[in-house]
Amino acid sequence: MAASEIERLTRALAKLPGLGPRSAQRATLAMLKRPDNLMQPLIRALEECAYTVTLCSNCRNLDTRDPCTICADTNRQRDVICVVQDVDDLWAVERSKSFRGLYHVLGGTLSAFDGIGPEELGLDALIRRVVDDQAREVILALSATVDGQTTAHYIADRLRSQPCSISRLGHGVPIGGELNYLDDGTLDAALRARQPLT
Amino acid sequence: MAASEIERLTRALAKLPGLGPRSAQRATLAMLKRPDNLMQPLIRALEECAYTVTLCSNCRNLDTRDPCTICADTNRQRDVICVVQDVDDLWAVERSKSFRGLYHVLGGTLSAFDGIGPEELGLDALIRRVVDDQAREVILALSATVDGQTTAHYIADRLRSQPCSISRLGHGVPIGGELNYLDDGTLDAALRARQPLT
Repeated sequence: MAASEIERLTRALAKLPGLGPRSAQRATLAMLKRPDNLMQPLIRALEECAYTVTLCSNCRNLDTRDPCTICADTNRQRDVICVVQDVDDLWAVERSKSFRGLYHVLGGTLSAFDGIGPEELGLDALIRRVVDDQAREVILALSATVDGQTTAHYIADRLRSQPCSISRLGHGVPIGGELNYLDDGTLDAALRARQPLT
Repeated sequence: MAASEIERLTRALAKLPGLGPRSAQRATLAMLKRPDNLMQPLIRALEECAYTVTLCSNCRNLDTRDPCTICADTNRQRDVICVVQDVDDLWAVERSKSFRGLYHVLGGTLSAFDGIGPEELGLDALIRRVVDDQAREVILALSATVDGQTTAHYIADRLRSQPCSISRLGHGVPIGGELNYLDDGTLDAALRARQPLT
């Protein structure tokens, strides 16, 4: 119906996660109606990212420099490595401002279903890094899903012979969470992780 | 947290309708991880649209040519004009394949609240077009909202002295719709628009 150029833009947008055909069409129309406010800034931002963003060869974070800003920051603890599944998890931990070490981005989790094994995740590189950097602690900040926890246990197993301590994130009641909306697994974990009120 | 280039892309995406900050971040990451499949096609599609798509000076449709493909199509009825609120409404009517006349895109509706009057909608241009093209019928395909119907009545009033017939879309039960999920207004309209079973 619309010109093929407009259709092509709608299809390219609809491939992004979170956008269906209808919302992609809405976004296309919004951009066509406001090219200076919406379309041109997006084109510039996309081109900038396409030509500058690269994978950090140390931690596999995405940044415009390699090693990335975090790996290059000499003020950060270099012997604590936080292992995350993906770059947006790294962003989430950074937003919390409660971690000042380095990261290692896996890019996924072990998954028998999807055929992702230790080689696909480059787990050897992680193990080598832990040994070479003489890491003191490895924090496995992986999702509390079956695949996430399988991956955490696999990494912990591989690091057992190393002199570093290995930890995972604490489970429990989310801050602001209401008890009667929590699932049984979380409530069980929170009870077992109960702490004395001092 | 992320590089400023990545932040800028996320912000540009988050301005699109239907995308919040979180889904924009997900879309950004998906593109950075699959530049050849997602990012480059989107850049090309955006640039193509930015440089080729223009407003049809006759009906205000968006197309790569002016007059647009629909206005230039000599096989279409030239004396029936379907007035729609926006280009995506035109696309919706075209998808239905049940209309073979021309369109007029208002780009909005009259709205006292938003300060949109007849001048802002360019209603004079529509009236002039109806007169100049000697239109036989004007179909007011506007939303069944207060603003949409106000606009329809205003246009009908302005065209009263013209020799063309003026119609609006039929109200009633949507095809596939279940009666007990319909609002009272629609059910009332459907009852009044009841038709004899032949």
